[in-house]
Amino acid sequence: MNTSSIKVLGICGSLRKQSWNMMALRAAGQLMPPGMTLTMSEGIDDFPFYDQDLMDAGIPAPVERFCDEIRKADALLIASPEYNFSVSGVLKNAIDWSSRMPDQVFRDMPIAIISATTGPLGGSRVQYDLRRMFTPLWGHVLPRPEVFIGNVASKFNTDGQLTDEMTKKFLGDMLLQFSGWTQRIRPATNG
Amino acid sequence: MNTSSIKVLGICGSLRKQSWNMMALRAAGQLMPPGMTLTMSEGIDDFPFYDQDLMDAGIPAPVERFCDEIRKADALLIASPEYNFSVSGVLKNAIDWSSRMPDQVFRDMPIAIISATTGPLGGSRVQYDLRRMFTPLWGHVLPRPEVFIGNVASKFNTDGQLTDEMTKKFLGDMLLQFSGWTQRIRPATNG
Amino acid sequence: MNTSSIKVLGICGSLRKQSWNMMALRAAGQLMPPGMTLTMSEGIDDFPFYDQDLMDAGIPAPVERFCDEIRKADALLIASPEYNFSVSGVLKNAIDWSSRMPDQVFRDMPIAIISATTGPLGGSRVQYDLRRMFTPLWGHVLPRPEVFIGNVASKFNTDGQLTDEMTKKFLGDMLLQFSGWTQRIRPATNG
Amino acid sequence: MNTSSIKVLGICGSLRKQSWNMMALRAAGQLMPPGMTLTMSEGIDDFPFYDQDLMDAGIPAPVERFCDEIRKADALLIASPEYNFSVSGVLKNAIDWSSRMPDQVFRDMPIAIISATTGPLGGSRVQYDLRRMFTPLWGHVLPRPEVFIGNVASKFNTDGQLTDEMTKKFLGDMLLQFSGWTQRIRPATNG
Repeated sequence: MNTSSIKVLGICGSLRKQSWNMMALRAAGQLMPPGMTLTMSEGIDDFPFYDQDLMDAGIPAPVERFCDEIRKADALLIASPEYNFSVSGVLKNAIDWSSRMPDQVFRDMPIAIISATTGPLGGSRVQYDLRRMFTPLWGHVLPRPEVFIGNVASKFNTDGQLTDEMTKKFLGDMLLQFSGWTQRIRPATNG
Repeated sequence: MNTSSIKVLGICGSLRKQSWNMMALRAAGQLMPPGMTLTMSEGIDDFPFYDQDLMDAGIPAPVERFCDEIRKADALLIASPEYNFSVSGVLKNAIDWSSRMPDQVFRDMPIAIISATTGPLGGSRVQYDLRRMFTPLWGHVLPRPEVFIGNVASKFNTDGQLTDEMTKKFLGDMLLQFSGWTQRIRPATNG
Repeated sequence: MNTSSIKVLGICGSLRKQSWNMMALRAAGQLMPPGMTLTMSEGIDDFPFYDQDLMDAGIPAPVERFCDEIRKADALLIASPEYNFSVSGVLKNAIDWSSRMPDQVFRDMPIAIISATTGPLGGSRVQYDLRRMFTPLWGHVLPRPEVFIGNVASKFNTDGQLTDEMTKKFLGDMLLQFSGWTQRIRPATNG
Repeated sequence: MNTSSIKVLGICGSLRKQSWNMMALRAAGQLMPPGMTLTMSEGIDDFPFYDQDLMDAGIPAPVERFCDEIRKADALLIASPEYNFSVSGVLKNAIDWSSRMPDQVFRDMPIAIISATTGPLGGSRVQYDLRRMFTPLWGHVLPRPEVFIGNVASKFNTDGQLTDEMTKKFLGDMLLQFSGWTQRIRPATNG
């Protein structure tokens, strides 16, 4: 990794077209510190459901493509909705497939999590499930600051632009810390 | 509900053909107390990934079928694998779709959870995520006893029959309690 | 239990004199529906730390007193701060001692949880730890609605009176549901 | 930190004299790789319960002593019992006090967790609560391997010596990884 350049892969756990989490990811892309750039993943909605029999028969093409996106990234930024107090099925499915790759694509990967919800808490339950999932995979989630975007409908305008100044500040502060975290985590393995 | 007859819907969170969790469900079906019967769900692997846009366009047929299975049941028995310390994507996806039904199919539904893993802990992390998911849905998970089937490969024979006597006893004891739990929970709303 | 009279024991997990959680408990006492009354526990701060050797030597007097308070109650209302994303040591210690009583004082006890924090999330992490703790004890925590009192300093006046109308409404709605929950849970065993 | 010397502070969350977790800590001390040494904390059972009023009046002497022990250590090894599916009150209380120190004693501290229980699961629920607690404190818990010592009574002899070879191997492997983890985490801040 060139420390003046951090390529972040954006992963969205919600599928709807007007996804608040996708808007939050795009807003994060605009608020990144110099040298950090965001590329959005092509998506995780064309995966089959994880099934070991399928895996044994050969890694599905969409899984391979997604894992290549991860391999090319220096860090991951995950925007997750909260469904029934936990992660969406589509995001969990993508994590499960990717976690089985022989080269362990999450290993020593710096990860940051944000979550946006229409309710007031902003995803304060789902983020700890996500943190725990990456633990056995040696994925390293930024400890703090945490970003929970509650009451999200009031924080973006009709063009999908983040207009809430407090949220902009929280996102910007987090991304700055994430830059440092990425530089701290990656050199240990990448030399 | 006729108290002498409890119809339990079996839901398996693993898709592979030789799924240990499916075997555990079938074993549970054989160990049920008099009056309790198990019907296996036709499956949850033909669902699309949850997407609010899809939902708004009409409930997909497989989701409607699954929810009908739930509506006809007196109780649910969920057998869950543990992937990356939490629930499988396919099972989470099924819960998320079903939780959005206008008639709230999980409301006041007695639920029991079992989990089988090839590792020694038997799913001791995933079960608490599942419990938490059903809380906001007013689904009532049997408090105890808990059944964790660890080292599962040693507990079934090559015909898929449960041969471990201790596990049989744990399952049988749980199902007896589940019978009482179901009778306790259901009359309160169903009269 | 006389269904026209529900005696609720209030338990506060914070010890400071001007505890926000104690204020929230007192506010709840004023918002209870007809027939429900709140008695505050004399406290849990004079317990020794749980130690099985001490337990074997005889149940300490403060523990016995607290368990008597629980035995005389129809339901428990716990107000918990959130320290380091979980329960306070003093509250956990009280639960641990009480859980070891030979008569299992939490068994089939209706429980409601509220939490107040000076931060915005209002205790959205601690409540699920508390819920999980009561599961093996067969204590039945009200599923919903949940009450998280965030930014608590802005919601009480200098006399310690709750002035935020939205929070009053949330508390009142929860207590009404708690009344129904208590009547549903208790007759099953005491009836 | 001299990389050839890692001073580990041992912290035990159980108070009874014949604590299995204390035995497990001592066993870990004997299994440490060259250069890593274990010093046991003098204890956390003489702390008052955390109370912000007390804190404001001055840090209690036992808290100050414990935090000094942490400051002198290169890494922490915590042995935790599991009470009611979570951490003991005495250990949570010690973490809460220490987390409030102005110099943030857990910041960038490498931490490993082990747990021993008489039941079969070995503490598989408590460890994730502990992990989550250290997240906001920037304490860095070794991701893997995890050590759960279940059925602990069968694994030590009457002299309190660990005799189970598998557990010895798990502990030894974990400590070796912990040594690398400590060297990776510490230089980043200590230069």
